[in-house]
Amino acid sequence: MKRTLGTCYYPEHWPREIWEEDAARMAALGLTWVRIGEFAWSRIEPEGGRFDWGWLDDAIDVLGEAGLKVVLGTPTATPPRWVCDKHPDMFAVDADGRRRGFGSRRHYCFSHQGYLNECRRIVTEVAKRYGRNPHVAAWQTDNEYGCHDTILSYSSAARQAFRGWLRARYPGHGNDGDIKALNAAWGNVFWSMDYDDFDQIELPNLTVTEPNPAHVQAFRRFSSDQVVAFNRAQVDIIRQYSDAPISHNYMGRIVDFDHFAVGEDLEIATWDSYPLGFLEDRVGATPLDQRHYARQGDPDFQAFHHDLYRAVGKGRWWVMEQQPGPVNWAPYNPAPLPGIVRLWTWEAFAHGAEAVCYFRWRQAPFAQEQLHAGLLRPDSVAAPGFFEAEQVAEELADAPDVAPAQAPVALIFDYDAAWSWEVQPQGQGLDYFGLVFDLYRAFRRAGLSIDILPPTQRQFDGYRIVAAPGMMVMPDDLKTALMASDTEVLIGPRSACRDADFNIPVPLPPAWPDLDVTVSRLETLRPDMPIAVAGGGSVRNWFEHLEGGAEAVFETESKMPVVMRSGTTTYCGGWGDDAFFDRLVKDLCNRAGVETLDLPRGVRVRDTATERFWFNHNPHDVEIEGETLASAGVRRDPI
Amino acid sequence: MKRTLGTCYYPEHWPREIWEEDAARMAALGLTWVRIGEFAWSRIEPEGGRFDWGWLDDAIDVLGEAGLKVVLGTPTATPPRWVCDKHPDMFAVDADGRRRGFGSRRHYCFSHQGYLNECRRIVTEVAKRYGRNPHVAAWQTDNEYGCHDTILSYSSAARQAFRGWLRARYPGHGNDGDIKALNAAWGNVFWSMDYDDFDQIELPNLTVTEPNPAHVQAFRRFSSDQVVAFNRAQVDIIRQYSDAPISHNYMGRIVDFDHFAVGEDLEIATWDSYPLGFLEDRVGATPLDQRHYARQGDPDFQAFHHDLYRAVGKGRWWVMEQQPGPVNWAPYNPAPLPGIVRLWTWEAFAHGAEAVCYFRWRQAPFAQEQLHAGLLRPDSVAAPGFFEAEQVAEELADAPDVAPAQAPVALIFDYDAAWSWEVQPQGQGLDYFGLVFDLYRAFRRAGLSIDILPPTQRQFDGYRIVAAPGMMVMPDDLKTALMASDTEVLIGPRSACRDADFNIPVPLPPAWPDLDVTVSRLETLRPDMPIAVAGGGSVRNWFEHLEGGAEAVFETESKMPVVMRSGTTTYCGGWGDDAFFDRLVKDLCNRAGVETLDLPRGVRVRDTATERFWFNHNPHDVEIEGETLASAGVRRDPI
Amino acid sequence: MKRTLGTCYYPEHWPREIWEEDAARMAALGLTWVRIGEFAWSRIEPEGGRFDWGWLDDAIDVLGEAGLKVVLGTPTATPPRWVCDKHPDMFAVDADGRRRGFGSRRHYCFSHQGYLNECRRIVTEVAKRYGRNPHVAAWQTDNEYGCHDTILSYSSAARQAFRGWLRARYPGHGNDGDIKALNAAWGNVFWSMDYDDFDQIELPNLTVTEPNPAHVQAFRRFSSDQVVAFNRAQVDIIRQYSDAPISHNYMGRIVDFDHFAVGEDLEIATWDSYPLGFLEDRVGATPLDQRHYARQGDPDFQAFHHDLYRAVGKGRWWVMEQQPGPVNWAPYNPAPLPGIVRLWTWEAFAHGAEAVCYFRWRQAPFAQEQLHAGLLRPDSVAAPGFFEAEQVAEELADAPDVAPAQAPVALIFDYDAAWSWEVQPQGQGLDYFGLVFDLYRAFRRAGLSIDILPPTQRQFDGYRIVAAPGMMVMPDDLKTALMASDTEVLIGPRSACRDADFNIPVPLPPAWPDLDVTVSRLETLRPDMPIAVAGGGSVRNWFEHLEGGAEAVFETESKMPVVMRSGTTTYCGGWGDDAFFDRLVKDLCNRAGVETLDLPRGVRVRDTATERFWFNHNPHDVEIEGETLASAGVRRDPI
Repeated sequence: MKRTLGTCYYPEHWPREIWEEDAARMAALGLTWVRIGEFAWSRIEPEGGRFDWGWLDDAIDVLGEAGLKVVLGTPTATPPRWVCDKHPDMFAVDADGRRRGFGSRRHYCFSHQGYLNECRRIVTEVAKRYGRNPHVAAWQTDNEYGCHDTILSYSSAARQAFRGWLRARYPGHGNDGDIKALNAAWGNVFWSMDYDDFDQIELPNLTVTEPNPAHVQAFRRFSSDQVVAFNRAQVDIIRQYSDAPISHNYMGRIVDFDHFAVGEDLEIATWDSYPLGFLEDRVGATPLDQRHYARQGDPDFQAFHHDLYRAVGKGRWWVMEQQPGPVNWAPYNPAPLPGIVRLWTWEAFAHGAEAVCYFRWRQAPFAQEQLHAGLLRPDSVAAPGFFEAEQVAEELADAPDVAPAQAPVALIFDYDAAWSWEVQPQGQGLDYFGLVFDLYRAFRRAGLSIDILPPTQRQFDGYRIVAAPGMMVMPDDLKTALMASDTEVLIGPRSACRDADFNIPVPLPPAWPDLDVTVSRLETLRPDMPIAVAGGGSVRNWFEHLEGGAEAVFETESKMPVVMRSGTTTYCGGWGDDAFFDRLVKDLCNRAGVETLDLPRGVRVRDTATERFWFNHNPHDVEIEGETLASAGVRRDPI
Repeated sequence: MKRTLGTCYYPEHWPREIWEEDAARMAALGLTWVRIGEFAWSRIEPEGGRFDWGWLDDAIDVLGEAGLKVVLGTPTATPPRWVCDKHPDMFAVDADGRRRGFGSRRHYCFSHQGYLNECRRIVTEVAKRYGRNPHVAAWQTDNEYGCHDTILSYSSAARQAFRGWLRARYPGHGNDGDIKALNAAWGNVFWSMDYDDFDQIELPNLTVTEPNPAHVQAFRRFSSDQVVAFNRAQVDIIRQYSDAPISHNYMGRIVDFDHFAVGEDLEIATWDSYPLGFLEDRVGATPLDQRHYARQGDPDFQAFHHDLYRAVGKGRWWVMEQQPGPVNWAPYNPAPLPGIVRLWTWEAFAHGAEAVCYFRWRQAPFAQEQLHAGLLRPDSVAAPGFFEAEQVAEELADAPDVAPAQAPVALIFDYDAAWSWEVQPQGQGLDYFGLVFDLYRAFRRAGLSIDILPPTQRQFDGYRIVAAPGMMVMPDDLKTALMASDTEVLIGPRSACRDADFNIPVPLPPAWPDLDVTVSRLETLRPDMPIAVAGGGSVRNWFEHLEGGAEAVFETESKMPVVMRSGTTTYCGGWGDDAFFDRLVKDLCNRAGVETLDLPRGVRVRDTATERFWFNHNPHDVEIEGETLASAGVRRDPI
Repeated sequence: MKRTLGTCYYPEHWPREIWEEDAARMAALGLTWVRIGEFAWSRIEPEGGRFDWGWLDDAIDVLGEAGLKVVLGTPTATPPRWVCDKHPDMFAVDADGRRRGFGSRRHYCFSHQGYLNECRRIVTEVAKRYGRNPHVAAWQTDNEYGCHDTILSYSSAARQAFRGWLRARYPGHGNDGDIKALNAAWGNVFWSMDYDDFDQIELPNLTVTEPNPAHVQAFRRFSSDQVVAFNRAQVDIIRQYSDAPISHNYMGRIVDFDHFAVGEDLEIATWDSYPLGFLEDRVGATPLDQRHYARQGDPDFQAFHHDLYRAVGKGRWWVMEQQPGPVNWAPYNPAPLPGIVRLWTWEAFAHGAEAVCYFRWRQAPFAQEQLHAGLLRPDSVAAPGFFEAEQVAEELADAPDVAPAQAPVALIFDYDAAWSWEVQPQGQGLDYFGLVFDLYRAFRRAGLSIDILPPTQRQFDGYRIVAAPGMMVMPDDLKTALMASDTEVLIGPRSACRDADFNIPVPLPPAWPDLDVTVSRLETLRPDMPIAVAGGGSVRNWFEHLEGGAEAVFETESKMPVVMRSGTTTYCGGWGDDAFFDRLVKDLCNRAGVETLDLPRGVRVRDTATERFWFNHNPHDVEIEGETLASAGVRRDPI
């Protein structure tokens, strides 16, 4: 399969007279894809029912004539003012009860039926008109679900929908639901929180102290389901009019909805990769790493999302927005290291991306993102990122294709667990993503390639190691499937520690049939209280006291078990530091017969079926097996 | 008197079929008390006027039959949903104007008359039914007044009540109050803030900049009075039906209402002691101490509250909730050091506690506190705290009783002063509790036992030292009583610096008849600006410039007086660091003929009439007078 | 011209019987001015239409008879309660949508027409009565516009007025405005933010993510214009009844409205100088400097504002409120170093102040500012500041007058640029004031005197260096005027980088006709990422990549140009640290033939036409040209 490049373009932002030249330059650069349309509702439908298709017909023609393929976005992330005037209660409401109004983007509540109908209407119009257009080769629904913290809404519409959702989850006679079942499931007796009727249930904000975690987790699941339904409504319409694949562009470290569930309805997963903005804003790196990687981005964060969205896309995935220069939205916005845009692009391909599109073609001189770099400067001169894209295009033309392969290591990622940890962190700053990412990083430091799997996976053939850390709800059939496999299974901390209604199960967790381990107590630790592990490394943040007859594989210096094992099942009762997770990974790899590497800091590899890719994320050259790999360098070795 | 143990139990949380076994295990463990009922309103009265007494009758029977005594809580901290539906404006409102709604606990405004009447009604029903029950040996009103910042409410009900309270405080003709008197008392002329009518007075939130401190302090006093009235309404009813003593369970470092005033209406003061949660959340220890004491708690914080609540209870006090393992609510929640639960229990007894009850019997697998340890795990297996309670029970059976004695040192604690400092801190992070606690710690480091006294105390016989630091309003008769005693009196900084309406008195403070000292100027200091005191130690945070003919006992290195004295009255014009407060304490003890000790870090003593108790709060053994005191160890020496 | 002293006095705060003595003591101290009345509305007009002039007539008489001149304030900063009851929607609303109510001061929205009319009415009454009073020698409008963040209001009144303001800015047929012009100017196409009507435009708060910067900047300009109009309404009335000069008292580092525009309507600019409060609260000094200058204040911050308000006052300016001791409002409130109140006073005179008035005469024992020092203590005893004022008064009597002179260096200060940076900082904590002040400090460290100029200045004769850093909008005629002058011109970073509607101009900035420099890319940097400049110093915070044929005067160590120059125009593409800005200043001075000094830390100079003033801001003595200048010392040398 041929990997391709693309860009994001907004014809409505630019004078008609430069469209041809833009299209020609894109084609000359070697781009295949151009995404358009996702913010253009006010120009497509300037007032309710009056459509202005001319410019968009024209733009698609111009691009298509130049040999480009169009990814057409539905414009529902930016409802025009007149739509909002028609539905004055369509806005989301934040946890403090404030309306999140018009004036930027994503100003809608997923639960508002009136707005949902407007979306159905505009998507129908767009799909009808362009569903068979030969240049429209793919679709994108909406834009970046969850950006700007927009999944959770505390609006009246959300409250009403939540009550209905709960009625369905705790069904009773007719449509009424069984409120006693809900009371029992949530343990509402605890503080006299019993309800007599579903209509008494409020959204879990503005309570005196923390609301019932079962209540909050239900709201999190409901909120995710609303996104799935919203997206599906669009997909169902597009499918009626088009055979082109449909995608959505997800984001980095946004876990507020179940991406796997949304992905089920789509052909392709794409994501928006901003390595420098992420490093400043959400990776959670140490200050020293933030400085070291300031112009390169974290060496694992993008890879993690590549692997995650490969799973979300069931194998088909893109980078829809690739940072090509400084951005405008992080706390600080440095410029990328020369060569690193090329590295980012190749890294995506090495992880299986079908396409990488740069955001955006030309830097806009107006509005919110005027300091967000494009491939072109506002004066249409090529920016530094342009030349790195050009180099990749040339390399793609010559190079052999990237041949995907199953990885030896699998890591289960569970959005439900992410919400559970958020609902009940038990310690400042503790979150599921952080735990999983720390373990992912340890596998990467050992030179391993990783497949991320959804929590619904029950088939583990071909994996040598499967890890499911921190997955608080583990259905019995998942436990069974893991035990039935012949892979090394790593669970804990916190795995299988809650039932489906957020209660602690008895017998106590992990209650893993073949593993004689019980978490008898747990504690969370200030950063200055690491617990040293005998032999090296330490446990921090989270520490479980383990009981039972299983073998203690690692112990603290005071002889408390940290990791216990029976057969191929290993339970880790703590959140390790890097040194300890490195030891744990090595131990598992030894058992599984997986070879590991000792990589220099900042160097990472990715194996395909035929090649090993080496990436140097450092701002300096390194020696790899006797050869120099330049700063920001990429090397492909046959395996 | 025989010291006793107990626990907190929620029969409504557990299947009926295990109650007998629970009760039997409690009795076998050596517990005397079991507190129940305080969150059970929705199960006692599932809908308005329909009562379900059966289960509670049954539970009390089961417990009583097992030989346990019941402390019965009124369930008013958790009004059920139907009560809230009946009184939709009964919720408190926060300073930002947001309603603090249903979904957790303490969701009521103390000023709401409708809710108050509901409370009177349910308390009447409960008291009628169980007032003469032979197993109900004590009562608790509500639960943890002030928890979750619930004393101050900015609701309409509070505003209305505040206006009435002000009318009574500034009385005029009839019921109207004298608004001119209020204007004059508050200095409302300052920024044209004069009122024409009490109905123009708003609550002091959401002003453009700080409101008048007199206005805020009046609101603080009003808010405290509302708690007293709310509590008294319940006490008045219970007394009609029961002769058992009535208590309330207070908290740590919560000073938002006058505990002495509430305590006046109760037979017993109890408090809820969570040493590890407190260390993380509110002690204000240095990072090094936070680490050193992470599994033991601060060595003085519990003792301070023991001494405080002994005064609030007029001698009769309990620990109603004793942390038995990790909790769920602090920023980090480590596990207690082995042995420390026993130490905490004995420390309470050494300070005169009649009973110590562990919270809670069994860890709940559901709802908000599912990660709060109990004596039992959710699977009913004994948790580590269980065995320490068992050891204490055995020791109690054998050991001589603890014989209370008056301490040589008295410290006046004044809630009104705490509000005054909060209203006018004059420097970041400066608060009354912190000042008083720093001085208390210095007395403790010197091996002294301390009695805390209410601000209404006028009798000081038997005390060798009385300290009243930071007490901003000191009535003349208190000054007179202190001068008339033959004790060493320590005041300052900030003592007697405001009149009853929050104005600076002229002559300037402290205006102490026998002490020629005037505070001519004051300043607050950044943490990096300590002022060195000649001879050792320094003043930080708060520094007053003192004038007058009194003797300068301590001076800064630049020769400004820090401590001045005439006769037995000593004025300290600064907030000392530990080294300086140690010197000041030694100086006072020398004058008063009180012997001091040089205790190792983390070791504390408490003297009773017949014994000296030694407590080792360190995570390591120490040598005390040639003998080893183990980590978490307790020693009793005859005096 | 004779420099004078004064104070701020509130006769309404004090018993009638001490007024004469107060007045006599003021006169004896050597004061000339006494400002009164600015918070006295509730005493002048206790109810709507009923005036109580007696006390104010009396007070003015008493003061005047004692030989003092009165500055009479309009009382509009503190509308009485009854005015607010009459206009319940007159309050400002904060960005979170909360009403900023009665109970302190400045509780009004500048856009509220009802309140504006009340102001017109009370100002008319006051001006009529005292316009020809022989003792009223000057006026002050309102008090401290912008204090407590009161310029921006998100009220309905503001929204309505903003729409009108926009209609006028984007005019169309009749009064309707051209909404398409606005859409185009703001780039509303960006996220389908197009409007159909001006009445659809909301204020730019509570949007989902950042609103359009053009929208925010328009709101900032509108909000400033509202202040100008509000002030002008008062001035227009006073002028009808009085010939005395009119002033307003501005503040430190408040840039929320265009002070030059307000100043256009006034004869005198005054400002309120609180060096210690400012150092704690807003200077932005390093922790080490905060400690070093804790009792003296920043050595440049007051000077900057002296120079700024000299420009705002078109040469005529005062310090209306001079800190005389500890204040009450900063995070920490230390006492001034002995002698420093005198230094502050002389520094103001050296920079051209006509008068310095101490705030306040006597410390108030009541209400919000009871811990704000006065010249007198609450018990009427002289406080330390009194004696320093006395010394200055004596020195003034003997010393030669201060003779103003044009400075060699000019610095353009542009409030519009301050808003632009706030709207689009592109990096945490980056603001225009900070940049300009860093450069100002560098000039001061080199011993230079500086004139600050308004952005409307087009005449630069006599200046050797003119700097306009960070001025994001630079009109063509300003560019032309600067190029036409023979002065060394310093611009950048960010100079001329936006057009009037907040769009990036093409050709790219700075687009300076005679300077071949283009900013091709920009980046912002975390504090731990300084970029070393070859030869010394570094760039931090902000770094622009410069292209073009101009000479590279300074380069980074990796050879990227930092400063480029053609002829007399120099562009600096970075925010320098002190070492680098010192080098840049020296370089410019060398070219301009301006002599620089090597001043010890904390020593500053100010040159008048005939003298060089030396000020020692250190808490220790220094050697200056072989002579000792004492701590807090002032020296006058003839030039």
